[in-house]
Amino acid sequence: MGEIRRLVTKQELTNTRSWTTRLDAKKSRIESVKKLVDGMIIPTDRIVEILERLLQASDRVVLEGNNQKQASFLSKALSQADPQILHDLHMIIPSISRPEHLDLFEYGIAKKVDFSYAGPQSLRMAQMLEDGQLTMGEIHTYIELYGRLFIDLIPSVALVAADKADQNGNLYTGPNTEETPTLIEAAAFRDGIVIVQVNELTDELPRVDVPGSWVDFIVVADQPYELEPLFTRDPRHITDIQILQAMMVIRGIYEKHQVQSLNHGIGYNTAAIELLLPTYGESWGLKGKICKHWALNPHPTLIPAIESGWVESVHCFGGEVGMEKYVEARRDVFFTGPDGSLRSNRTLCQLAGQYAVDLFIGSSLQMDHEANSSTVTRGRLAGYGGAPNMGHNPGGRRHSSPAWLNMMTTEDPLVRGKKLVVQVVETFQNGNKPVFVDSLDAIDVKKDSNLAVAPVMIYGEDVTHVVTEEGIAYLYKTDSIERRREALSAIAGVTPVGLKQSSARIEQLRREGLIAYPEDLQIRRTDAKRSLLAAKNIEEIVEWSDGLYEPPAKFRSW
Amino acid sequence: MGEIRRLVTKQELTNTRSWTTRLDAKKSRIESVKKLVDGMIIPTDRIVEILERLLQASDRVVLEGNNQKQASFLSKALSQADPQILHDLHMIIPSISRPEHLDLFEYGIAKKVDFSYAGPQSLRMAQMLEDGQLTMGEIHTYIELYGRLFIDLIPSVALVAADKADQNGNLYTGPNTEETPTLIEAAAFRDGIVIVQVNELTDELPRVDVPGSWVDFIVVADQPYELEPLFTRDPRHITDIQILQAMMVIRGIYEKHQVQSLNHGIGYNTAAIELLLPTYGESWGLKGKICKHWALNPHPTLIPAIESGWVESVHCFGGEVGMEKYVEARRDVFFTGPDGSLRSNRTLCQLAGQYAVDLFIGSSLQMDHEANSSTVTRGRLAGYGGAPNMGHNPGGRRHSSPAWLNMMTTEDPLVRGKKLVVQVVETFQNGNKPVFVDSLDAIDVKKDSNLAVAPVMIYGEDVTHVVTEEGIAYLYKTDSIERRREALSAIAGVTPVGLKQSSARIEQLRREGLIAYPEDLQIRRTDAKRSLLAAKNIEEIVEWSDGLYEPPAKFRSW
Repeated sequence: MGEIRRLVTKQELTNTRSWTTRLDAKKSRIESVKKLVDGMIIPTDRIVEILERLLQASDRVVLEGNNQKQASFLSKALSQADPQILHDLHMIIPSISRPEHLDLFEYGIAKKVDFSYAGPQSLRMAQMLEDGQLTMGEIHTYIELYGRLFIDLIPSVALVAADKADQNGNLYTGPNTEETPTLIEAAAFRDGIVIVQVNELTDELPRVDVPGSWVDFIVVADQPYELEPLFTRDPRHITDIQILQAMMVIRGIYEKHQVQSLNHGIGYNTAAIELLLPTYGESWGLKGKICKHWALNPHPTLIPAIESGWVESVHCFGGEVGMEKYVEARRDVFFTGPDGSLRSNRTLCQLAGQYAVDLFIGSSLQMDHEANSSTVTRGRLAGYGGAPNMGHNPGGRRHSSPAWLNMMTTEDPLVRGKKLVVQVVETFQNGNKPVFVDSLDAIDVKKDSNLAVAPVMIYGEDVTHVVTEEGIAYLYKTDSIERRREALSAIAGVTPVGLKQSSARIEQLRREGLIAYPEDLQIRRTDAKRSLLAAKNIEEIVEWSDGLYEPPAKFRSW
Repeated sequence: MGEIRRLVTKQELTNTRSWTTRLDAKKSRIESVKKLVDGMIIPTDRIVEILERLLQASDRVVLEGNNQKQASFLSKALSQADPQILHDLHMIIPSISRPEHLDLFEYGIAKKVDFSYAGPQSLRMAQMLEDGQLTMGEIHTYIELYGRLFIDLIPSVALVAADKADQNGNLYTGPNTEETPTLIEAAAFRDGIVIVQVNELTDELPRVDVPGSWVDFIVVADQPYELEPLFTRDPRHITDIQILQAMMVIRGIYEKHQVQSLNHGIGYNTAAIELLLPTYGESWGLKGKICKHWALNPHPTLIPAIESGWVESVHCFGGEVGMEKYVEARRDVFFTGPDGSLRSNRTLCQLAGQYAVDLFIGSSLQMDHEANSSTVTRGRLAGYGGAPNMGHNPGGRRHSSPAWLNMMTTEDPLVRGKKLVVQVVETFQNGNKPVFVDSLDAIDVKKDSNLAVAPVMIYGEDVTHVVTEEGIAYLYKTDSIERRREALSAIAGVTPVGLKQSSARIEQLRREGLIAYPEDLQIRRTDAKRSLLAAKNIEEIVEWSDGLYEPPAKFRSW
């Protein structure tokens, strides 16, 4: 051992250490605004000066930059703070969505950022990093960022949004509960300060989503928090190719493996599947046999399947603008409060989507020979969101389901099942860029942005199926890298990856069941028409919903 | 496509379907007990007849059999129900801990069970399954069972326990919040019925852990809920071998890889590590460099490390009997409510332990050549608990940390880090049974109990390090199954696995750094003595704690 000069014993320790530094700091900060606030209530017009007192330089601050819901009043107020007073903040923003999220760094108020997703701000983000205006912490998935809030990214302050509060600080979030309770829990139970913007103060709440004893301050926002309808896909944009792929998925994957619980990505190709269940799925007698339980936001394109009795349950990450009345009227299917409005929960839904469903299906912009894929492109730092959690085979899973067991291909006594991870891509993107490539752009982004690892969304080792307009590659059946490459190239069309296959070899792969073309699944390409969609536009979805779905203006064409 | 006789359209669907069947059932059940209850309050002595009305045959019922906290009043009451009225219940019990959990099946009240852990009842459980008295659902880890509560195991009724409630049904759980909020959320937001036993009804709660609007009924229990001190390890039982292993772990793993955040198993070998930090760890100048952030129950053996300033934070799955006052007095370290008592959260801590820490370290009863391990033995169905979640490399993780990056061993442009998963075992268990075996008992248990897959706790592919009294095998450095086997056998002593190595080959493995013996880490075996422990018994732990730790009677010897 190292030279033990002496063993420390209890008696030798100075007993001068305080064990309440966080509580003491919280008390003195709250004391400093005592005269400016009315109990828990912060006057709307004094928010900036009060933030300047409740926060301190170098604080670790979690800001609800949520996936859909934004604490927009608080983020604007923070960006107006005096950088002489508030500087070097370490921001934790699950989703960097608004311009002022990055203004904070430009103005010198904040310095370092940890985040999950930066879709709308990804270009500016990359530029600011290059210009040294921002220090990068780590890029996370949602769920691992939440985890770190309880380990080594414990916040001093949480700035979040809710619909309503009562005088005791109890919160009602409405349908967009999302991650608000998790962000608050991390600060509230570690002597952090919790500040909540609400649209309204009221005497009686429809229900309580977060107890008042977790909250320190309430401020009524000057306007309702920002909320984005991120998951609404207008069926008008669904193409015949996407319909063909959806038919293949339904027969060649969902029916073949008896997929009963699942999570869909947010593209038009998965919207097509949702809209084919009541028509094409019905024609094969699949109702009640597949697609019964969903971990999914309340997608409008799921309405026809719900109305025709396909769907037993949907648990939601977040809400979706326009779906409020529909969800309330279909409470046998959705998780709702006693008040009838949706209760979403991003933390629990990510957990359920990872561990409790048979299948994830999504899309990507690039895929290499081994089915590694990424949506990351050069010059953008978009982050991960939730896809890597949904789109991997969770090694901690121990329970089985028919679909999970169906992925076992060996006689090894320790063999176990797998989550189905399906990637649906067309061989070429818009602009004639091949999706299948020799090397992912993510590798260049790693170098450009000086990241520790290449930002891969879904690793090939986790992918069980790839679907293109050519056919399906059953990658879970392959027993070597070489066989995976072969199966993939057989459905990769005339891309650099696809050109490597001979047609005799392809016939061999079909016979072995490593790939399937539409005709192998009794699908005629000429049947893949938009007329198969249960709803061909938003208006028809509204009709299916008995007028309960109220699409945002930008989706209305009538 | 299948013959499409006709496409279903909205107009063709009968509009007679109700979408509020769950709410209607809930209302009518609650109506049926209206005259027997006082608002939300169930009279203690009428609990059995009220359960017979609020539940119905074939219901899916989640019962808080928690890891430590037991809804013991409610489980006893349910076992007294009339099987003519209540039968064929489908029970979801995270931890099957109490005799009446299985009585329910013997009496014909319940039929099917889904669970995570059945340690104390594992023998009877296996026997009842064999006798056909019980239908097995699936065996889960905690976190995947919680996930299924929101997907395909949505409960009709939740029976849970809390410390106190007020007249509005707001709940205070005290330190053992554990999974209560998650179990309640699944029922409360799907029109299920939530029934909570409390130790006390009170006017004012110290804090609110679950809002009253999530709760339907409160019943004051005839005696406080059962609570087990599961994680208290008396240092008197720590052996010199365990101390030697702890020294190797500190130098050869924690220091080598800069492990800053971690989760410890609950054995004496990890207790030894905790008790060596302030002595042996201090002698190597490691304070502030390793072991700063913990996902861990409040282990008493961590007290000396906390007192000597090693520990910045601990987030807890649950509480630990006797640690209440200590935790309250050390609130800079633990997550506590504004009232000062611990706020644990098994769901969030499992999430954090999976995604946000560098390392898991635990033990096992059996390990095969490829480092697959299991604590399952024949004739017992013990389940999984949380170890498989802590003890695997989470494929969904994207952020990096120094230790995680340190596991990268190739130049592949897509290489990423790994969670450190460490198994500490002695080559022989008590009774001279070798730990290293040719084939796990789990394979026989699979056959005996007709399980879908063998009950493996931790798969070899996830294990980065194995530590025995002989040395450390750095499995993460091996690039083939053969090399893994070699490294493992070099530290497996005279077991069937260990006997396969020549000493020349072993020297080669040492030189390559695939294994390390104590002397390679500058550890003298003769230094490994109990005198190195910062506390050698419970009394010394109490002393370290300034008398704040109050051990349960069974741990007191003075």
